[in-house]
Amino acid sequence: MTDAAPAVGARFLEFAARHRPAVEAELERLIPSAEVEPRALHAAMRHAMFPGGKRLRPVLALLAAEATGGDPRAALRPAAALELVHTYSLVHDDLPCMDDDALRRGRPTCHVAFGEANALLAGDALLTLAFEAVAEGGASAVKALAAAAGSLGMVGGQVGDLEAEGLGGDLTLERLEWIHDRKTGALIVASLEVGVFAGGGDPAALDAIRSYGRTIGRAFQVADDILDVTGTAEALGKMPGQDAAHGKSTYPSLLGLDGAMAAADRLAAEAAVLAESACRSGPDGAGLESRVGLLQDLAYHVVARKT
Amino acid sequence: MTDAAPAVGARFLEFAARHRPAVEAELERLIPSAEVEPRALHAAMRHAMFPGGKRLRPVLALLAAEATGGDPRAALRPAAALELVHTYSLVHDDLPCMDDDALRRGRPTCHVAFGEANALLAGDALLTLAFEAVAEGGASAVKALAAAAGSLGMVGGQVGDLEAEGLGGDLTLERLEWIHDRKTGALIVASLEVGVFAGGGDPAALDAIRSYGRTIGRAFQVADDILDVTGTAEALGKMPGQDAAHGKSTYPSLLGLDGAMAAADRLAAEAAVLAESACRSGPDGAGLESRVGLLQDLAYHVVARKT
Repeated sequence: MTDAAPAVGARFLEFAARHRPAVEAELERLIPSAEVEPRALHAAMRHAMFPGGKRLRPVLALLAAEATGGDPRAALRPAAALELVHTYSLVHDDLPCMDDDALRRGRPTCHVAFGEANALLAGDALLTLAFEAVAEGGASAVKALAAAAGSLGMVGGQVGDLEAEGLGGDLTLERLEWIHDRKTGALIVASLEVGVFAGGGDPAALDAIRSYGRTIGRAFQVADDILDVTGTAEALGKMPGQDAAHGKSTYPSLLGLDGAMAAADRLAAEAAVLAESACRSGPDGAGLESRVGLLQDLAYHVVARKT
Repeated sequence: MTDAAPAVGARFLEFAARHRPAVEAELERLIPSAEVEPRALHAAMRHAMFPGGKRLRPVLALLAAEATGGDPRAALRPAAALELVHTYSLVHDDLPCMDDDALRRGRPTCHVAFGEANALLAGDALLTLAFEAVAEGGASAVKALAAAAGSLGMVGGQVGDLEAEGLGGDLTLERLEWIHDRKTGALIVASLEVGVFAGGGDPAALDAIRSYGRTIGRAFQVADDILDVTGTAEALGKMPGQDAAHGKSTYPSLLGLDGAMAAADRLAAEAAVLAESACRSGPDGAGLESRVGLLQDLAYHVVARKT
C-alpha cells in the first residue's frame, strides 16, 4: 500500500529517532521516583510508562512545532503530556470493568501487577500530571488537550466503542468513523495543536494543521485495522486477528481489505497535500521544503508501518 | 466547640449563599446535556454532579479572589473546576475496587446507576473537564490544581488512606496528618490559590493564603472526624459512627473527643490570625476589614458546622 509514496517516511523516522531520547528523559523527570511516597503509586505509574513504545504522540507535538516554524525544544514538557494521557487511557482501558486485559507489550498490566485500586489511581495521577506538564505550554495548550481527551473526545469515543461492542459490532462506516475520530484521532490532532502552541509555531497554521491531523489520525486507524489482518505476531508484539475474533467492525470488515488499503493510500495522499498548506501558512524561508517533507513523510509512514 | 468564636461564620455563610447560584449555573453550562452523545456518559457525569452539596471548594475560590482584592466573577469558571475535581474523586472512590459504596447523598452511586465502565469514564471525563475549565484562569491556576490533585496531593493521600486501612487503622498522629493534608487539605489550598490566580488577586498574598488554607484544611478534617462521633444522621445525611465501626484512626480516636475539639478550636484561632496577614499582604482600603472578616468567619464556620 506504499506504492504511491515517494519514500516510506525516512525524514519522519530520522526526526523521531533524534528526538525520542529527550522525550524519554522528560518522562523520567516528570514521574516521581518509586522511592517517593506513596511508593506503590509511583511504582504503578512507572510500570505503566516504562519501558515505553514509540512515543508517537510526543514526537508528533515536536514535529508540529518544527513544521510551523517554532522550537521543538520549547515544546518538550507539553509534548510529554501527550504520552501521559495516552498511557493513563491504556491503564484504565485494561481494568477488569473495561477490556480486562492481563498483558500489555508482553508484561502484566498495571492492575495485575499492583492491584485494581492502585491501577485506577495511577491512571488518575498520570492524567493529572499531564495537565501539570502541558501547562508549561500555556493555557491554549491546556484547553486543546482537555477538549481532545474529554467527553467530546477520547473518553467519548471510548464510551461509543463500548456501546458498539454491546451491539455485536454491526456498525455503519459513519459510526465507525465517529468512534475512531474521537477515541484515537482527537489526541493525534491535539498532539499537533499542543506542539504549535507550546513551541511558538505560527498560529496561522493551526487550521491547516488540524485538517492534516484529522486526516493522518484516520489513516492511522485504517492502517491499524489492516495490520490486524495482515500483520505478524512478531512485528505487532501481539496476536493479529483479534478484531475478527471479537466480531468487531473495522475498516477491512466494512470496505474489504483492498478497499481499506485504497482508503489508507487516499488518506495519506490527502494528508500530503494538507501538509503543504499547513507549512505554507507559516513562515517562508530555506527550511520550508524540509518542513513540508517532514509532515508528508509522517503521512506515508503512518500507512506504511508494519507495527 | 464554638464558644471561642465571636460569631459562627455569618459573613462567610452570607457570601456562600450569595455566590452559590452562579456556581451551580456555571456547572450546568460546563457539563454537556444528557442529549449530547455519548448520552450515557453525559448522564453519568450529571448524575454525579446534580443535585449537589454545598459547593464548598468553588465558594472558597471565589472567597480567596475577593479577600485578596480580585474579582470573584472573573474566577467563576476556574472555581467550578474545583467541584469537578472533587466530584470525580467521589465517583472513583465509590467504585467496587475502592470503597464499594452503593449510596451517596441518599441516591445510588454513579456505578450502581450507570455501570462500572461508565462510572470510571465519567470520573475521567469530569477530571479532564476540570482542566479545561481552570485553564480560563491561566497556566498558574492549572499548575496549582494539578499539583494538588495528583500523586503528591489528593491521589497520593487516597493511596495512603487505602494503605492505612490495610494496616488495621493503627496510625500515628503524624501519619494521619500526612494522609489528610493530601487527601482533603491539598484541594482546599488549591481552591484558594486558583481563586487568587483567576480572580486577579494580589499575588503577594499567596504565601499567607496557602498557610491559611493548610490550617483550615486541617481544621475541616478534625471537625469532620468529630461530627462522625457527635453528629446526627438527620443533619449529616449519613449514619454517624462509621469511622469507629470501620476501626479507622481519627483525630478523636488519637486525641480523645475533648482533645480533638480543643485542636479544632486552636486551628480556627490560628487561621483567624493568618487571615489577617493574608489580607494585609493585599491592597489596603475600605474593604480590608470586611475581607479579613470573611476569611475569619470561614475558619469559625469550618469547626462550628453541623453538616
